[in-house]
Amino acid sequence: MKKHNFSAGPAILPASVLKEAGRAAANYQGMGLSLLELSHRGPEFTAIIEEANALMREIIGLPEEYHVLWLTGGASTQFYMVPFNVLNEDETAAYIETGVWANKAIKEARYFGNVEILASSKEENYTYIPKKFRVPKNTRYLHITSNNTIYGTQLHKFPKSPVPLVCDMSSDFLSRPFDPAPFGIIYAGAQKNLGPAGATVVIVRDDMLGTVRRHLPSMLDYRTFVKENSLYNTPPVFPIYVSMLTLRWIKKSGGLKGMQRRNRAKGSILYQEIDRNPLFRGTVAKEDRSLMNVCFVMEDAYAGLEKDFLKETEVNGMVGLKGHRSVGGFRASTYNALPKASVQALVDLMQDFARRKG
Amino acid sequence: MKKHNFSAGPAILPASVLKEAGRAAANYQGMGLSLLELSHRGPEFTAIIEEANALMREIIGLPEEYHVLWLTGGASTQFYMVPFNVLNEDETAAYIETGVWANKAIKEARYFGNVEILASSKEENYTYIPKKFRVPKNTRYLHITSNNTIYGTQLHKFPKSPVPLVCDMSSDFLSRPFDPAPFGIIYAGAQKNLGPAGATVVIVRDDMLGTVRRHLPSMLDYRTFVKENSLYNTPPVFPIYVSMLTLRWIKKSGGLKGMQRRNRAKGSILYQEIDRNPLFRGTVAKEDRSLMNVCFVMEDAYAGLEKDFLKETEVNGMVGLKGHRSVGGFRASTYNALPKASVQALVDLMQDFARRKG
Repeated sequence: MKKHNFSAGPAILPASVLKEAGRAAANYQGMGLSLLELSHRGPEFTAIIEEANALMREIIGLPEEYHVLWLTGGASTQFYMVPFNVLNEDETAAYIETGVWANKAIKEARYFGNVEILASSKEENYTYIPKKFRVPKNTRYLHITSNNTIYGTQLHKFPKSPVPLVCDMSSDFLSRPFDPAPFGIIYAGAQKNLGPAGATVVIVRDDMLGTVRRHLPSMLDYRTFVKENSLYNTPPVFPIYVSMLTLRWIKKSGGLKGMQRRNRAKGSILYQEIDRNPLFRGTVAKEDRSLMNVCFVMEDAYAGLEKDFLKETEVNGMVGLKGHRSVGGFRASTYNALPKASVQALVDLMQDFARRKG
Repeated sequence: MKKHNFSAGPAILPASVLKEAGRAAANYQGMGLSLLELSHRGPEFTAIIEEANALMREIIGLPEEYHVLWLTGGASTQFYMVPFNVLNEDETAAYIETGVWANKAIKEARYFGNVEILASSKEENYTYIPKKFRVPKNTRYLHITSNNTIYGTQLHKFPKSPVPLVCDMSSDFLSRPFDPAPFGIIYAGAQKNLGPAGATVVIVRDDMLGTVRRHLPSMLDYRTFVKENSLYNTPPVFPIYVSMLTLRWIKKSGGLKGMQRRNRAKGSILYQEIDRNPLFRGTVAKEDRSLMNVCFVMEDAYAGLEKDFLKETEVNGMVGLKGHRSVGGFRASTYNALPKASVQALVDLMQDFARRKG
């Protein structure tokens, strides 16, 4: 029986993608070879990475001055690679601190130049997105985290900024349409909406490159990946292939508008239930609620029932619903590939549980 | 029909491993979830990475002071990460230049400290392994490349050194037993003998860590991976899983001694044929011939037949035999997983071809 997978990441991928990935790992397109044993310079993988790049450009609507790069090392690698590539020691970068990941990005950047934290919700355990700040014109970039996986907050509007936005989009990448124009760099670990762990996408605009004075090792220089079309050395072949399959699925499913419709529909029924059900409550400011990670806890009067409820989700074929330790309670990650039926199953259980235990 | 896969990398993996990898990508152990959508912090992946580490330690025979780390970014990332982690600006590292990859390692290291090239076979297009050099006592480490994929040379004896060896073992990792004692750091991209592209193994000894004065970003600091058991951030789950399956296969197949027996048997019949067959000749010094990448060309008198022979290998279900552009001719990569029967098929074709065209 297929499980309802609410994991925060690595996360659910479309069922059709997983099926095709399994076939490719055993025997790629019936050619008598697994994709895992094919050269990254051969015609098969060349076609895969070219299709992945073309689909990414088409789905987002990327203008020519943006490059799509395939790296490894996750967002954690981008935390230092971004300032290493674009921030000189005498320059200042602006950061908005909306969670632990933003905090790590700030820590890594401090070693490369000046960092100014324009706003932070740390004092409130990151339960809202700070919106009152002005971005100084003389900063190199403004770094934001579009979705905060741990807390379940999301930027529903990107801040106005006189300087390029740099965005960690790891956990809501490709979940909704957006205008790329304000962004200088977008990065995302694949393992939420895009593919399995092991690939990292960086989308970088031409004007962000070649402005730092420090020496960059080849593998840390975005320009190496631009110049060599992400094939300077052996890339993570299989994670890129599965990402390409997911991009095909996104396109076929209505593109980013289709994803947004799906995600809004799921978020709507789940948040409605959280607000309606006397046993549960949400943990973050309503206006900042994430459509990717829905965090909720039991009302104080029922707090003793958290374990029971978690147990019942497991018995009913739902996995990954335990909340992160820094928030507690429950977290339902409702990434692109999660079917509405999974959310409905969770809502049904919440209602049933409330009838029995409320 | 299963092909004879002579690719240089990503390369052939054991058939049983590929089959199990395909199943895991579709549905991991019948649990109703793909391994690609499972959390890296869950019990399933924890068991996988722990087994991978234990098998690696057992198969090589690693003493306690060595750490097994799983990274990404390939050997090309280690070219700068090694000196970044262990070489101070006022220190000198010694390098042996045995090919293009060694050359790249040298180039990247120069930015972190002093580099002394003790020996090089560049002038002879890297057709032999230089052996006459003395390693100065006051160097931080001696960097070697144990096997040179492009040229088909291999170090059959590691040099005596008063300082720790740092070794790029990417293309002959786990192909033969070796004594780890002289090594401070061993690194290897997975995509030859170990697994699919996307994982990089670093084996580092305690005394190599914590001696540099420069700041290291978290993701570039080996100590982060030591401390967090390679789980500081999301690792490349699937490539590590497939590597674990390959490690199981190596253990079951007689460990490193078993691999060496297999590889010697394959090398022996292929090199014998190259030396015997009047149409072909090897390209490197006999004493340095690699048991992983067997490079050969057609004798000058038959050079016009190279394309014909390559065509015939393809018709006969053999892939990946075209030589690297910097050597020409043919390269048969005979990694651990390549069956002896594949080598025999190639030898049979060489004999048949010589009878017809010689």
